[in-house]
Amino acid sequence: MQENNFRVNPHSLKTAISRVETDKIVTRGYNQRDLIDKIRYSDMVFLLLRGRLPSLQEGKIFNHVLVSFCDHGATPPSTQTARLVASSGSPLNSAVAGALLSFGHKHAGAIEKTMELFQSKIGSTYSTGDSSIDNKQIASSAIEIYSDYILKGKKIPGFGHRYHNIDPRADELMNIVIKQGFVGPHIKLALALEDLVYEKKKIRLNVDGANAAILSDLGFTPDLGLGVFIIGRIPGIIAHIHEENMDEEEFRRFCDLDDIIYDAGR
Amino acid sequence: MQENNFRVNPHSLKTAISRVETDKIVTRGYNQRDLIDKIRYSDMVFLLLRGRLPSLQEGKIFNHVLVSFCDHGATPPSTQTARLVASSGSPLNSAVAGALLSFGHKHAGAIEKTMELFQSKIGSTYSTGDSSIDNKQIASSAIEIYSDYILKGKKIPGFGHRYHNIDPRADELMNIVIKQGFVGPHIKLALALEDLVYEKKKIRLNVDGANAAILSDLGFTPDLGLGVFIIGRIPGIIAHIHEENMDEEEFRRFCDLDDIIYDAGR
Amino acid sequence: MQENNFRVNPHSLKTAISRVETDKIVTRGYNQRDLIDKIRYSDMVFLLLRGRLPSLQEGKIFNHVLVSFCDHGATPPSTQTARLVASSGSPLNSAVAGALLSFGHKHAGAIEKTMELFQSKIGSTYSTGDSSIDNKQIASSAIEIYSDYILKGKKIPGFGHRYHNIDPRADELMNIVIKQGFVGPHIKLALALEDLVYEKKKIRLNVDGANAAILSDLGFTPDLGLGVFIIGRIPGIIAHIHEENMDEEEFRRFCDLDDIIYDAGR
Amino acid sequence: MQENNFRVNPHSLKTAISRVETDKIVTRGYNQRDLIDKIRYSDMVFLLLRGRLPSLQEGKIFNHVLVSFCDHGATPPSTQTARLVASSGSPLNSAVAGALLSFGHKHAGAIEKTMELFQSKIGSTYSTGDSSIDNKQIASSAIEIYSDYILKGKKIPGFGHRYHNIDPRADELMNIVIKQGFVGPHIKLALALEDLVYEKKKIRLNVDGANAAILSDLGFTPDLGLGVFIIGRIPGIIAHIHEENMDEEEFRRFCDLDDIIYDAGR
Repeated sequence: MQENNFRVNPHSLKTAISRVETDKIVTRGYNQRDLIDKIRYSDMVFLLLRGRLPSLQEGKIFNHVLVSFCDHGATPPSTQTARLVASSGSPLNSAVAGALLSFGHKHAGAIEKTMELFQSKIGSTYSTGDSSIDNKQIASSAIEIYSDYILKGKKIPGFGHRYHNIDPRADELMNIVIKQGFVGPHIKLALALEDLVYEKKKIRLNVDGANAAILSDLGFTPDLGLGVFIIGRIPGIIAHIHEENMDEEEFRRFCDLDDIIYDAGR
Repeated sequence: MQENNFRVNPHSLKTAISRVETDKIVTRGYNQRDLIDKIRYSDMVFLLLRGRLPSLQEGKIFNHVLVSFCDHGATPPSTQTARLVASSGSPLNSAVAGALLSFGHKHAGAIEKTMELFQSKIGSTYSTGDSSIDNKQIASSAIEIYSDYILKGKKIPGFGHRYHNIDPRADELMNIVIKQGFVGPHIKLALALEDLVYEKKKIRLNVDGANAAILSDLGFTPDLGLGVFIIGRIPGIIAHIHEENMDEEEFRRFCDLDDIIYDAGR
Repeated sequence: MQENNFRVNPHSLKTAISRVETDKIVTRGYNQRDLIDKIRYSDMVFLLLRGRLPSLQEGKIFNHVLVSFCDHGATPPSTQTARLVASSGSPLNSAVAGALLSFGHKHAGAIEKTMELFQSKIGSTYSTGDSSIDNKQIASSAIEIYSDYILKGKKIPGFGHRYHNIDPRADELMNIVIKQGFVGPHIKLALALEDLVYEKKKIRLNVDGANAAILSDLGFTPDLGLGVFIIGRIPGIIAHIHEENMDEEEFRRFCDLDDIIYDAGR
Repeated sequence: MQENNFRVNPHSLKTAISRVETDKIVTRGYNQRDLIDKIRYSDMVFLLLRGRLPSLQEGKIFNHVLVSFCDHGATPPSTQTARLVASSGSPLNSAVAGALLSFGHKHAGAIEKTMELFQSKIGSTYSTGDSSIDNKQIASSAIEIYSDYILKGKKIPGFGHRYHNIDPRADELMNIVIKQGFVGPHIKLALALEDLVYEKKKIRLNVDGANAAILSDLGFTPDLGLGVFIIGRIPGIIAHIHEENMDEEEFRRFCDLDDIIYDAGR
């Protein structure tokens, strides 16, 4: 049938991820037998997302990133949704799906927005190769962001945390990248910006802001930020669902009947 | 308000996963600063799910398990659902959620069923500590399963693959655990059973069957089997969604209008 | 490629629901132009699910069923999940999907289980056509269920409500079917059973129990029970999501940090 | 615990939808007993979404809208996702959730975008009450949209259909509103615009465009457009899932192994 003004999408699919043959699976050019035998799981994640294996240093840094996303207790909306769905008797995969649906722009959008902000500034910087000149440009970018946001009363993505003055994950990550000499232009920008923001607002980088800078220096584009966060966080969410399922309690609820105010005038 | 015959669930939640304080997060008893600095991501997954860190050998084996689940190209229903949802313009987290909803009992139920089968047999075995006696008991269990399934024409969970005669992932995993001397009773049972089944039906262990045995020897209960599979597979699914989003095509469809037969008599 | 031991499913799909041609859509044998012009929406739902239009009386009864499922305020887990997901900034369709994932067996399984129970009893009854004999058989079935559940201390599906002594929806529905002379064997069974259960336990039919009986007398099989409930409840859930989105508040949470008890000994 | 720079959301919830008391449920100010007894289901949907009952004419028109969304066979991505998820053995509610996740901006965004477009034009029109003047203003608005989109080579939302030259649902709906004398400014705008677009591009209003105009004249805001579409479409999706579950086939797939091209160079 001729379709009107729409390109017909045939059944065929082109993919660069895996080639499946009888008795053989090749992923990103590597035989899965070799990957299963030799590769760290965090390097496998990097390979899948980026199409190449990380260098030794990249692999170490990416491992820190994944661990840092693992869990923030039962406080995030996604974890609460997971436990709420599980408490209704739905299977584990449905409860994980529920958690994912709570990664809305208010909850999980920060990492992508921060990566876009940092990459737009660094991407428009002309790198001279002379570090004193480049550092000066980065310092200027930090001041620009500070002016665009803080001086105009806007929240900067990647800064501040509901429960922490110093987000221990962000702080530890920054210590690690400095100690390991992995400080690219995006991390420099994040640190310069933190100095300005802290002085004025007493607010520091949070885990999203720190990882946005690190992932940017690792070469990740913003559209993979949420994906990396999901990969890091899913194991924690599954631990919460499993704990919930061990529990005998009836439904969870964020409010009971007595907490609900009927206000017809709304 | 008094509720009828239902226990009221207050807002409080008991959890053993993480304690969140101002500027400090403790997960499974460890400061997250230390975990971020020192732990491999695969060990972090083990810690979250099991409540303790793995031994060195357990950690290595669990890493192989996670890598082996990573991707099977665009063939599984979950991966196809992910790409179908992504092609409608929904955000990445929704497409991952869609994939999870396709882990129904026909697609992802095998690992849990195989773990239950293996653990029920081994759990009812009286371990004497004398390996020749214990091995004989395991051989008897294998024959029991063989009789209960193959001789009655039933499919054994964890065996056979749509695309492979020898599932390369199962084969490689079994090579690895033998080479590393990690062969507990569940793996022995799986190998004994494979010999019987292969002789009669030319069917071998698949990736679910091999991992069911390994995870059982690692001490995982069946209710965590699907969770481990999900953790291992999500990075592959995110790679597929990202690839789909890079693509300009319109909606994917498993059948076009001309493929649909209207049969009112159904 | 030859696939091992699996039937290959080609792209073709047989369906009896709708035939789509250029400029014409025929659903269940009716031109959609006619359906749009002439049919009540509740009759359209019946037509889609059952493959035929309802009789005048069936149509009226089915309309009462759909209305009775509409909303129970913000108390059900599905509605709370919908508002929780919406409060994270996710789009409306994701929040509805979240609600659906909370229809687990503890929350939404009752209608299907009650339909199975009622239909198994009535299905094994030999209908004589003589109403006094048939009514006696139904009374015996009620006593059987009563003995199998109440005397053994088991909960009967379709009875009792967390917030109501008399579920006003069940009570009203039973009044209506009696008034309208629509009392088939499943409704008779439900009413006979309610008498027994109320005398002993002071528990009455709830909305699921009443609708299970009515839908059974309308000829619905149990595997459509949850579907009818979902159709009836979705408009209420969308109203809650819309109300939530109008609201300026941050994330909803069923417990705050201070409500969480960290108990590593679990 | 004091939270940083975030408003604490207590457990309380204000709602105008339903008040639940022991043995009584009041929805939008009406006792549910009365609603169950007296209201058409389509009017109940209107009441839930809008907070008031429709007039007789509004109720009739809204019923046509709901019926018109019911089903488009197995062609839409959402229906295909539903059948794909169901074919993996997942429960019905998960398959419906999967369908909802496919209502991405490419698939289900048109109705909202069209409502925004129409309402922005009509909202900025100064209504004089003199119909010849007002009609002239609407004709100008149609020309403005035509210039902004068609003359610039952009697609107008709500126009054109993959399978139909004349979308029979849109055509029938427009016939009905004209016949019933329900032609408000948004419908006038849609009809005027269709004349211009058809002359130049031979493209007509589709079901989303027609309903966007009708819902706008019924007083619905754009943020409820997707909700109304979901309510109308869910029964069709459940019919497809039920049909799929009756079927013995293995997994559906939009492409088989032989359809997949591995192209590492991507």
